[in-house]
Amino acid sequence: MKSIIIASTSTLHEGSYLAYLLPTLQQHFKDCKSILFIPFARPGGITHDEYTEKVTQAFATINIAVKGIHTCEDAAAAIKNAEGIFTGGGNTFLLVTQLYQHNIMQILSETVKNGTPYLGTSAGSNICGLSMQTTNDMPIIYPPSFQTLGLIPFNLNPHYLDPQINSTHMGETRETRIKEFHAFNSIPVLGLREGSWLEVKGNKITLKGALSARLFLKDQNPEELETETDLSHLN
Amino acid sequence: MKSIIIASTSTLHEGSYLAYLLPTLQQHFKDCKSILFIPFARPGGITHDEYTEKVTQAFATINIAVKGIHTCEDAAAAIKNAEGIFTGGGNTFLLVTQLYQHNIMQILSETVKNGTPYLGTSAGSNICGLSMQTTNDMPIIYPPSFQTLGLIPFNLNPHYLDPQINSTHMGETRETRIKEFHAFNSIPVLGLREGSWLEVKGNKITLKGALSARLFLKDQNPEELETETDLSHLN
Repeated sequence: MKSIIIASTSTLHEGSYLAYLLPTLQQHFKDCKSILFIPFARPGGITHDEYTEKVTQAFATINIAVKGIHTCEDAAAAIKNAEGIFTGGGNTFLLVTQLYQHNIMQILSETVKNGTPYLGTSAGSNICGLSMQTTNDMPIIYPPSFQTLGLIPFNLNPHYLDPQINSTHMGETRETRIKEFHAFNSIPVLGLREGSWLEVKGNKITLKGALSARLFLKDQNPEELETETDLSHLN
Repeated sequence: MKSIIIASTSTLHEGSYLAYLLPTLQQHFKDCKSILFIPFARPGGITHDEYTEKVTQAFATINIAVKGIHTCEDAAAAIKNAEGIFTGGGNTFLLVTQLYQHNIMQILSETVKNGTPYLGTSAGSNICGLSMQTTNDMPIIYPPSFQTLGLIPFNLNPHYLDPQINSTHMGETRETRIKEFHAFNSIPVLGLREGSWLEVKGNKITLKGALSARLFLKDQNPEELETETDLSHLN
């Protein structure tokens, strides 16, 4: 049975890394002594080792060990054998490129669909949708495909931002960009605000966290969904 | 001799379409009775015809006729024979995809390099750089390549936005995104604020408009460039 947490962000303003999610993660990974961490989204600033160390420190507080996939000789085997998996944030173009380059996109999808508990934050959440085409990230690298894990039957826009009232900026708002996506695609898009996450248990998908989320369907007005909304029938 | 205007935006807040640029465009296109308009970046909302009509109305005020490339049977011939060319804004992924699909990326580059006066705004400016990899747009469609016209020896970030002081948002700032680009690419990136443009005359590239622009070089601190700065030696 699928067991997935898909979070808009790893970190809340003035919070420490993963802090707001730890009670949820303690329950989510309750059968795991250790989890596999995928640091591939991080484009620099910190190394994969340093990124993994940051995750290790956060998970140490709930007594779960962390191993970085970049230290595993056989990445596919590491995924298959993991007790739990966490993909961290960064740049989605880079993450998707590396998942394809390491030839682990499919095995990651299959493994999580088969029940290995998964956590994604930001870019690691983006890849849970059908495609990465509603990311906010900059195309710093050319991925072989925009198709992603397809763990849920729709797309995500993490770090969703409402249009700023009184803005004089003429660049597109997030809502306009998602509307552009729907000019060519019929996949629903969920704008997930920082502090919200999705809980996937089998085929049940539930909005969690204190905030509402904004749902975009092709050719329809966006809709605000309250926390605890059941999204299972969205596709 | 190359003769190009590369503008951050078509429209300023509370201004009408192209209004702030019209005195510049009157001079830029002074030898043109008509120009060819490329509406391919627009992902919907208005049709190519409607978009072309909007451009036609703006250029009518400086007595220049406009023809939409989507109405031409032979797009490549239309580019080669144009007195001047304007590519409007919208979504850069869509624009680049369509330029490749119509097989006109190369002929457009050659034609403008050979001296046909060109105007780009927003997405139409993004494509003037070496690649579209510093666009702000959402990847709503998968282009066959990120390579673009290469009319200037660096990349652009139109609609450049400074980080917001006191923001509680945890998504990446524009500056962080460009830094991510430089983790994998050494091409300089110019953040062009709304109201700024580049004037290219032969090999001379000059920053125009009232605002400063922000220059990002790999592994260096960003630099503010005042208007009228000569960017010819940037590469």
